[in-house]
Amino acid sequence: MGLIVQKFGGTSVADIDCIRNVAKRVANTYDQKNNVVVILSAMAGTTDNLIEMANKVTPAPNKRELDVLLATGEQTTAALLSIMLQSMKYPALSMLGYQAEVVTDHTFGNARILEIGANRIKDMIKKRKIVVVAGFQGCDTQGNITTLGRGGSDTSAVAIAAAIKADICEIYTDVDGIYTADPNICKKARKIKEISYDEMLNMASLGAKVLQIRSVGFAKKYRIPLHVRSSFNEEEGTMVVDEDSGMEQLVVSAVTHNKDEARITLKKVPDQPGVAAKIFTPISESGILVDMIIQNTRAGGQTDLTFTVPKADFVKALEVEKKVAGEIGAQDVFGDKNIAKVSVIGVGMKNHSGVASIMFHTLAKENINIIMISTSEIRISCIIEEKYTELAVRVLHTAFGLDKD
Amino acid sequence: MGLIVQKFGGTSVADIDCIRNVAKRVANTYDQKNNVVVILSAMAGTTDNLIEMANKVTPAPNKRELDVLLATGEQTTAALLSIMLQSMKYPALSMLGYQAEVVTDHTFGNARILEIGANRIKDMIKKRKIVVVAGFQGCDTQGNITTLGRGGSDTSAVAIAAAIKADICEIYTDVDGIYTADPNICKKARKIKEISYDEMLNMASLGAKVLQIRSVGFAKKYRIPLHVRSSFNEEEGTMVVDEDSGMEQLVVSAVTHNKDEARITLKKVPDQPGVAAKIFTPISESGILVDMIIQNTRAGGQTDLTFTVPKADFVKALEVEKKVAGEIGAQDVFGDKNIAKVSVIGVGMKNHSGVASIMFHTLAKENINIIMISTSEIRISCIIEEKYTELAVRVLHTAFGLDKD
Repeated sequence: MGLIVQKFGGTSVADIDCIRNVAKRVANTYDQKNNVVVILSAMAGTTDNLIEMANKVTPAPNKRELDVLLATGEQTTAALLSIMLQSMKYPALSMLGYQAEVVTDHTFGNARILEIGANRIKDMIKKRKIVVVAGFQGCDTQGNITTLGRGGSDTSAVAIAAAIKADICEIYTDVDGIYTADPNICKKARKIKEISYDEMLNMASLGAKVLQIRSVGFAKKYRIPLHVRSSFNEEEGTMVVDEDSGMEQLVVSAVTHNKDEARITLKKVPDQPGVAAKIFTPISESGILVDMIIQNTRAGGQTDLTFTVPKADFVKALEVEKKVAGEIGAQDVFGDKNIAKVSVIGVGMKNHSGVASIMFHTLAKENINIIMISTSEIRISCIIEEKYTELAVRVLHTAFGLDKD
Repeated sequence: MGLIVQKFGGTSVADIDCIRNVAKRVANTYDQKNNVVVILSAMAGTTDNLIEMANKVTPAPNKRELDVLLATGEQTTAALLSIMLQSMKYPALSMLGYQAEVVTDHTFGNARILEIGANRIKDMIKKRKIVVVAGFQGCDTQGNITTLGRGGSDTSAVAIAAAIKADICEIYTDVDGIYTADPNICKKARKIKEISYDEMLNMASLGAKVLQIRSVGFAKKYRIPLHVRSSFNEEEGTMVVDEDSGMEQLVVSAVTHNKDEARITLKKVPDQPGVAAKIFTPISESGILVDMIIQNTRAGGQTDLTFTVPKADFVKALEVEKKVAGEIGAQDVFGDKNIAKVSVIGVGMKNHSGVASIMFHTLAKENINIIMISTSEIRISCIIEEKYTELAVRVLHTAFGLDKD
């Protein structure tokens, strides 16, 4: 007996057979006397196809209208699942973003949820209906259709779970949980049984593949337990919960890696106030996201400054900075695409010293040079040469006691 | 300078190139200082594909949810045309049924329009925006998505034209107007320049191919002039207008034919009160539409009764009536699928006698036997043997002076 939100991703509703499987799972949950609200993505590939169609018209489609177009994807799956459940004699009905009162700001293509009325959802739950909500979409205060950006259905699910005070939000996807490392490069990786919201938030590279990071922030804020699991089997997945919930607090819970960044260095930058702003303003105006930034003080009023950007933006960022270097009188600008970021993450880190020392020692033992370091309260990240990525992940996984038996 | 509603059918928005042509036409109308509201159908074939998809789930999809699914078709074209117009620097925006305040009853799949707020459309027109409305869809008073049935976009267009008091409603389609007869069987058929609402309403078979008959009733009620024309050329099409508008009132404006009906006869029916109800109630309960009914009084308290039904329902109707015949004591039931209906239509008929006489004479001269006759104020229809259809249309077309030079 509970109120359960179940979110199914694009691969889980890829065709009629997949939708039938989803219907069976929803029906089964309902039969166990639970109330169920389902949130759906579009069929795998649909959103990309729709974007391609719009791009045939123009390379820069109007954003309001693109959202109207993209919203058809989730409308289709929501209708089809409702038809399926009805044909199985379950009292299902679909709701689109505006019907579920998912009110957002006006940022078409990447809207933020302002509030969720969910009055109609609550009414329907009282009548023991199964409500199937089209994910990824909302409407602004003027009634325009908006979409929530890539992976937005996760955010829809968590936000609706919060609005209706659901007991749990289950995220069904094509992987069966969160792992201590990428199983493709670390054979000894284990599925994590429980992980905290904060750890999940710090696991961008491992986590983002299965869960939109924005939705985790939502879940944390409203304390909605998430259960990340596979829609293709019955196995328990990974619970994402509050760290005070009595979960075991490992010093390090996971080792992640990311090969999608490149490094740019400005050499002998004059060490004056305002220089950093001159370096990063044009980058941000070009829409390039900077991840890590490191600056070392050097003798003679000059400093070296290094930062990382997505590999896809490397050429553009280098171009921008060459212009900047001329203006501010830096000696040289160069970059490197052959780097990777390796991180260790764990809430236990807060209470244990020595994690950094173990990490640096472990890498040194393998002759892996550390190019940059950055840390958060529960994460330490090192930039290394790309070719050492797999080796680094494996030795760190072993060093922090994460290997399975 | 005017307020023009332009409706484009499925073949006019069948792909990106077609949508580009539509955009050019809309832009051209706008450039001539007109305000333009566009109503779109789904791409040709889309609605059928969506129905097929739903039927893969179940042969009888839930009607509310089917409407949610079908509504994506017009949502897609409305978004794409708006994107196209925006890319051409025209201030276009799309509106879905609920955004355009197309309020309907709750009959999912075949909803009737109750009222159209159109406040937002009017606001946008004042701002010189081009409003692109998804046709075929509305919403009921509870906010559920509804659709208006086959050809419903025509009704959307005329109803919106009425709500915003448009000067004209242009119906763009894949034919270039209404003809005096089907040009495929009557080479001398001419395009009609002007026709009255009532004539159009009586031209089901010729007219329905280009215009949903329900929309003509709407146009008549609110006196919206319709212009039926091709989206593939610039030629003037056919104006559908009020008969008092000064149009030339021909005695006969067109000759139409219909091969889609079959005849059923009940022989020696006891001529008692209540018998007709016993004959037609089970037919209507089977969802079969009866067109013509004829009953002749016969000696001895018995009568023969004949009626026509769509050919597709012939077997079912015959079955139903065989049961009825037993119950009411009729002597026999038999039917005939090889019949056709030929009609002459014209508002001038009201003031001229002798039309029936010319029609019967013309058919008799060719030895065409008349099986049944029915009339309206401005139409005379004869049921004949199917094999004479083309001949009958041609000789009537000549007899009433409709042949082109």
